[in-house]
Amino acid sequence: MTVDINLPDCNYKITIDKLQNIHIDTKAVIVTNQTVSSLHLDYLLSKLNVNDISVVTVLDGEQYKNFTTIEQILDHCFIHKLNRKSVLIALGGGVIGDMTGFASSIYQRGIDFIQIPTTLLSQVDASVGGKTGMNNKYGKNLVGAFHQPKAVYIDPYFLTTLPSREFGAGVAEIIKMAVTFDKDFFDSLKIWDLSINSEDLNKAIQKSVQTKAFVVNQDEKEKGIRSVLNYGHTFGHVIENLTNYKKYLHGEAVAMGMVMANELSKDLGYLTQKEADEIKEVLE
Amino acid sequence: MTVDINLPDCNYKITIDKLQNIHIDTKAVIVTNQTVSSLHLDYLLSKLNVNDISVVTVLDGEQYKNFTTIEQILDHCFIHKLNRKSVLIALGGGVIGDMTGFASSIYQRGIDFIQIPTTLLSQVDASVGGKTGMNNKYGKNLVGAFHQPKAVYIDPYFLTTLPSREFGAGVAEIIKMAVTFDKDFFDSLKIWDLSINSEDLNKAIQKSVQTKAFVVNQDEKEKGIRSVLNYGHTFGHVIENLTNYKKYLHGEAVAMGMVMANELSKDLGYLTQKEADEIKEVLE
Repeated sequence: MTVDINLPDCNYKITIDKLQNIHIDTKAVIVTNQTVSSLHLDYLLSKLNVNDISVVTVLDGEQYKNFTTIEQILDHCFIHKLNRKSVLIALGGGVIGDMTGFASSIYQRGIDFIQIPTTLLSQVDASVGGKTGMNNKYGKNLVGAFHQPKAVYIDPYFLTTLPSREFGAGVAEIIKMAVTFDKDFFDSLKIWDLSINSEDLNKAIQKSVQTKAFVVNQDEKEKGIRSVLNYGHTFGHVIENLTNYKKYLHGEAVAMGMVMANELSKDLGYLTQKEADEIKEVLE
Repeated sequence: MTVDINLPDCNYKITIDKLQNIHIDTKAVIVTNQTVSSLHLDYLLSKLNVNDISVVTVLDGEQYKNFTTIEQILDHCFIHKLNRKSVLIALGGGVIGDMTGFASSIYQRGIDFIQIPTTLLSQVDASVGGKTGMNNKYGKNLVGAFHQPKAVYIDPYFLTTLPSREFGAGVAEIIKMAVTFDKDFFDSLKIWDLSINSEDLNKAIQKSVQTKAFVVNQDEKEKGIRSVLNYGHTFGHVIENLTNYKKYLHGEAVAMGMVMANELSKDLGYLTQKEADEIKEVLE
């Protein structure tokens, strides 16, 4: 299936399906890390129809989502003489997607990029909507840009090699989408079997992407409703920052953040004990 | 007078006049350098009506238009806890304007900034149109963003303290505007007396800004006609890069670049000897 993003000055499609042949008629650079590269680079290359392609491999992990890595990507682009019509391809999880997007937003004042998310979390959330960026000593994603991809290809095949902790972190973001925007979806999650390769998982990915697209189409720059998707992120970012982005995966921190946000909401009288328990149960 | 910039997702006004009171109801940071600060910061502060303002002073010169300085500006913003509604104010020439614009484009994925250009070059060209960026070892303005200012205030009073070399460099960009887009304007330049505080200079500033606005309104992202304004810049940037941004001012390098571009055009048969001589005469 495809989901459309329609914004005032840009439109693109999110394809959720086994990767088909992708034709690119300009110079292209794949940005990935060693882990993803060893698992999936050959698979991607077999699907790419492109004349001039090179690969830049960056260090794996949220702690490397900084300007040093952005500069490594930019340097690669300058050395390979990419021009304003060239394209970057993000092959990896949210960290790779955010940094590839940010690098492409500032290389020669902005070039195209394509998202090929390989983790559940980036498939259901991070790869959609054009939020790009990096961390610095003051916190997470505090430097970046809104820069929409030219296309997003979500292939559930990538999930077959995903470690179970990473998978659970992605499920947390799926639950976030359901809690914030779709009660029916949330109720379905209580009974669906979200295992790899399952039909239910595919439905959950589709629902999440549709929800994200629905929100982004209304509020690209997060001036209103889009900020609801930050549910769990205020506390979550603090948890990640205090533990140097090493102890918890992003989705794990967000899951804890949602529980903490619920506690606060209960104290403030916005949420009942029953509602908080219901969310906590699905999260567990 | 005011000139309007009307783009699909943003509109702003360029005011060419003695600075009036400017009211800002959010946190603000002025970005400037020591030279401009000692001459004009008090004047600007006397015109600003703002509750919470601070100043970050960066090193003066094109050789400091790099990520180290961008990081200094961003650090200042983080330390002073600017949020997404805060505003940066560029007080200085093109280097200050480009870096302030770029920093504001990536701080928390983009905040507003105001251009208050203090050199002739930045008044007639650089402050208008949203091109922001920095240099790196590969060349000039190769990393940056299109990020439109919220407003531009052009006050010819600032020019009274401008060194004559800087003034000449600005005149070169005025000539560029005339040569590329307005033959009547070019003919006027042959007879106008472009001295500080003169009526002719004011007219030349207005004409240049109107020309720039006319072009930017048609092609914000430089996919077509806007690239004509790069006349003289291909050779100019190489001259600046080879001399480490120290020997020539940007406008001086562009003036030399225009003469070199004319020589090439003559060789390629696009320009007659008479036309090339005419431009060279006005440049001199």
